[in-house]
Amino acid sequence: MSLDQVLARLDGERDDALQRLFEFVRIASISADPAYRDDCRRAADWCSAALNDAGFTASVRATIGHPMVVGHYKGAGAEAPHVLFYGHYDVQPVDPLDLWTRDPFDPAIIEVNGEKQITGRGASDDKGQLMTFLEAARAWMAQTGALPINVTVLIEGEEESASPSMVPFLTENAEELKADVALVCDTNMWDRKTPAISTMLRGLVYEEVIIHAASHDLHSGYYGSAARNPIHVLAAILAALHDETGRVAIPGFYDGVPELSTELKARWAALGFDEKAFFDGIGLAQPAGEAEYSTLEQIWSRPSAEVNGIQGGYTGEGAKTVIPAHASAKVSFRLVGDQDPDTVRQRFRAFVKERLPADCRAEFRSHGGDRAISQPLDSPWVRKTQAALSREWGRDAALIAMGGSIPVVTQFKTLLAMDTVLVGFGLEDDRIHSPNEKYNLTSFQRGTRSWARILAALAA
Amino acid sequence: MSLDQVLARLDGERDDALQRLFEFVRIASISADPAYRDDCRRAADWCSAALNDAGFTASVRATIGHPMVVGHYKGAGAEAPHVLFYGHYDVQPVDPLDLWTRDPFDPAIIEVNGEKQITGRGASDDKGQLMTFLEAARAWMAQTGALPINVTVLIEGEEESASPSMVPFLTENAEELKADVALVCDTNMWDRKTPAISTMLRGLVYEEVIIHAASHDLHSGYYGSAARNPIHVLAAILAALHDETGRVAIPGFYDGVPELSTELKARWAALGFDEKAFFDGIGLAQPAGEAEYSTLEQIWSRPSAEVNGIQGGYTGEGAKTVIPAHASAKVSFRLVGDQDPDTVRQRFRAFVKERLPADCRAEFRSHGGDRAISQPLDSPWVRKTQAALSREWGRDAALIAMGGSIPVVTQFKTLLAMDTVLVGFGLEDDRIHSPNEKYNLTSFQRGTRSWARILAALAA
Repeated sequence: MSLDQVLARLDGERDDALQRLFEFVRIASISADPAYRDDCRRAADWCSAALNDAGFTASVRATIGHPMVVGHYKGAGAEAPHVLFYGHYDVQPVDPLDLWTRDPFDPAIIEVNGEKQITGRGASDDKGQLMTFLEAARAWMAQTGALPINVTVLIEGEEESASPSMVPFLTENAEELKADVALVCDTNMWDRKTPAISTMLRGLVYEEVIIHAASHDLHSGYYGSAARNPIHVLAAILAALHDETGRVAIPGFYDGVPELSTELKARWAALGFDEKAFFDGIGLAQPAGEAEYSTLEQIWSRPSAEVNGIQGGYTGEGAKTVIPAHASAKVSFRLVGDQDPDTVRQRFRAFVKERLPADCRAEFRSHGGDRAISQPLDSPWVRKTQAALSREWGRDAALIAMGGSIPVVTQFKTLLAMDTVLVGFGLEDDRIHSPNEKYNLTSFQRGTRSWARILAALAA
Repeated sequence: MSLDQVLARLDGERDDALQRLFEFVRIASISADPAYRDDCRRAADWCSAALNDAGFTASVRATIGHPMVVGHYKGAGAEAPHVLFYGHYDVQPVDPLDLWTRDPFDPAIIEVNGEKQITGRGASDDKGQLMTFLEAARAWMAQTGALPINVTVLIEGEEESASPSMVPFLTENAEELKADVALVCDTNMWDRKTPAISTMLRGLVYEEVIIHAASHDLHSGYYGSAARNPIHVLAAILAALHDETGRVAIPGFYDGVPELSTELKARWAALGFDEKAFFDGIGLAQPAGEAEYSTLEQIWSRPSAEVNGIQGGYTGEGAKTVIPAHASAKVSFRLVGDQDPDTVRQRFRAFVKERLPADCRAEFRSHGGDRAISQPLDSPWVRKTQAALSREWGRDAALIAMGGSIPVVTQFKTLLAMDTVLVGFGLEDDRIHSPNEKYNLTSFQRGTRSWARILAALAA
């Protein structure tokens, strides 16, 4: 049987697959920082070459930002299913660099508590995850000369910086990219032993606000007490974002937020979520959000407001007695249900403006926004994928939700009328977006085997 | 008459004096940043050479931080008065560098609204001010071979970074440095035409607070809502520092704060402070402090709490969805009357700790603290200096106060039992501690002439 031969080939060529992933991780493709523009281009070239080498017909496609990579395989015939696989080659910035114990762009295998881990920025998010699919497809073609189904691959380079080129690219290339269903590998397993399909994702609104006061930085001795300090103004606004119960205090913020169905609430409760382990893993002890919701509900089904960055005045070493001319914060909102990104953005801006004292003005910069999504649990794509995953891991794949946002899933729905099956092999301790990101070797190797099985299952 | 000849010499050698100041400003002696350590050393060497060249016996004196420079002139005889002149060769950091219209360490003369200005970091604070005295002394010695009084000069290199070496240095060298009175040139004129002596200075407590939450930075999608965000905690604490009337809300903060005497209140009211011009000059329109006090009272006689810097999470370009492990702020308090620095520091720390929610801890770093001071208005040193200033500028020198802190003045009082006469030629629009610092050419040239007159007056 072909699948067994493909799985055997994957097991026999593990080292080669790992070397390919290492090569990919070594490229510092940080999309948010213009200084890494050339590295992003190199990562796109690398992906295109890897796809062509595996048997796809692939090319790098220019955008106004970082390029896309598109590859096609149509050898399964017009009657066979057609999937669009999506991943991203760009990675998060690496600061604070001094907290990394290894160079983020010099991957290695390390052993921690008896587990082998692949280190490096992007080892999990999303280079490692993306390569599980590519390695599975490569093995199918190397072993059988074909894939069981038709596959289009789309790899973007702006996922970590709000994907400004995705909507125009999908719109302009809708005919080429449209498939029966999308597959996205950018999510987590339920736990180390239990694979999962994520069926709910929160949306995201990202705003930057800059409070301006004096025309230039002031000496706090000569002006302190009398001159408006924009850090004070910003702190007061941010402090007002939540009430004392952890609820977001922006009027109308909860419009469109559904209560969780009794069924889903029960299903999640039955997952046996280990709250202590969850908080232990991040050095905390208890949930900080709305007290009447469980931790899982807080991160999966409740909207949030989080300050992701703040800056103002003197932040170097030592002391400087300055009242700065301005202070700024980056604030993001996770959305659920029918919350509308534009409405949330406008309500946040109004909330800020209402709180501005004399001599201050607010400047806003938008860094994107997307609605939440949820996928039907009973589609054949979900059921077949679930069965394949369950066979590989020897236990039932869980149907879970995810607190993070994957805007492209919304865009596949709205622009290409496609549902998405979200399968990934990340773990919650992968430290994605943080120093010392890693991907378990098991995630990589069994993830690859899982995709080999899913390709077969979707053909049936 | 010697004084007239000295003044004539100063007028004749203005260009040489300016070139010496330019040479001094070109040295990037930023004391707060360890990267500029060698520049600080060069500035000390430069001062020592300049003093020796002028006729003092001077040397660079090592400390555990940046070195001191001490010079002596004792040629006026045992019966003559003996003053200690103090200045500092170190300067503030220059960030944000992109707001400077010229290189901060490449001084030049520019003309703005018909006024000639000397540009550069330190042009006013304190290199320009310091050089007014040195040039006056140089001219006296060049012209007459002597100074009218005995003079010790002390130039430090840590004034902009909390002067960690000053107390040990004054203690160890008390015999050598003790004089009849100290002269400090680090203050402003009342306005462009009116010289001033500052008789009250606010004290300073500088604290850095770091709020720690999770053990590492977290992805705000996976953890947002549930994980404690230290930026939120910090914002809430800083927002609570002031009540809605502008009063500092730390319990006991106002212990030891005197009400202004009716006499001083009247004297300051008579100065004709141009509030509109004051706020226009900094792009603001109205005072932000305690409503029941005038602007001048707010900055001269009321204590303050100002956040001088804040930092947490992602502050680079674009968007990063992170909940940081920690967030920090630099907070300074201006003190008046009998407010005790250690008590204020402890009360601030208690205020922070009381507001910490679960899963947070606060770390504190102290960046120095000094009491406020006020000097007797009727001392002969003040009266003689006032008379000399009034002759040079053709109008009565004002007796004013200053919102800034000059800890060394407190230390001269407590360690060497000396009062200080504070005379300076800075203007409130000199943008010290800010981009585009400048010193008016008039301040430099008439400041130099003023010191030549003061040296003569103190001998009488």
